[in-house]
Amino acid sequence: MSRRAVPPRPTASPAIDGWLEAVKWTVDGLVPAIAQDAATGKVLTLAWMNREALALTARTSEAHYWSRSRRSLWRKGEQSGHVQKVREIRLDCDDDAILLLVEQVGGIACHTGRERCFFQRLEDGRWVDVEPVLKDPEAIYGHG
Amino acid sequence: MSRRAVPPRPTASPAIDGWLEAVKWTVDGLVPAIAQDAATGKVLTLAWMNREALALTARTSEAHYWSRSRRSLWRKGEQSGHVQKVREIRLDCDDDAILLLVEQVGGIACHTGRERCFFQRLEDGRWVDVEPVLKDPEAIYGHG
Repeated sequence: MSRRAVPPRPTASPAIDGWLEAVKWTVDGLVPAIAQDAATGKVLTLAWMNREALALTARTSEAHYWSRSRRSLWRKGEQSGHVQKVREIRLDCDDDAILLLVEQVGGIACHTGRERCFFQRLEDGRWVDVEPVLKDPEAIYGHG
Repeated sequence: MSRRAVPPRPTASPAIDGWLEAVKWTVDGLVPAIAQDAATGKVLTLAWMNREALALTARTSEAHYWSRSRRSLWRKGEQSGHVQKVREIRLDCDDDAILLLVEQVGGIACHTGRERCFFQRLEDGRWVDVEPVLKDPEAIYGHG
């Protein structure tokens, strides 16, 4: 069998491969993954995983995703320190969406420095930012 | 401008069109939409919306989605009665994911008769059903 360039297959055991193959991956080999704060119940992020990201998430109990824009694997918080420690991994009835219950280290999930990414609320036909920036992104990610 | 076959554009006012165009739709004209129970905080479903579905969701305060398998618009609960009454619509930092806070009528969001779709939990390398069927799908959707 020839290797596929994108996304890479995880180096996983046959047992792990079994549950990975139960997931209905898109034609691009991805699945959407919701991260929910296990303590507050707030929905923090929606990101994408390939097989390797999901396998690593399960193996390390830290959320890994596939960046569609950078076309690369990333460990959530690898730059910011805002790691998502995974308490539970769930799959939906159609096997095509993942839900993570996480402990959000640092209390900041969004690259804008907010608690979570879903900070725009529809009000009278426009999107309004309704959650505060807790930390300047410049201070999170550093300079240049 | 020629009409696009899929997905259909909503018959929306220019003001509504403004916030709709702020959403970063996929090349297929879709956006993933998470529904979260406003009362319990539980994540119920992940489904997809096109412009018309999102416009109708905002206008009617009932969740509408785009079925990728049936290639048609659907109002959640149109067959089952398990409507999602929408309390809040949110958009994420990248403008490419929607979060709905909903009141789940009937307490059942999943077509399997469970409270929600995320009922499979990863345990020791396999997916385990961890939430009960509250109502027989046959009883929800009727016969033939």
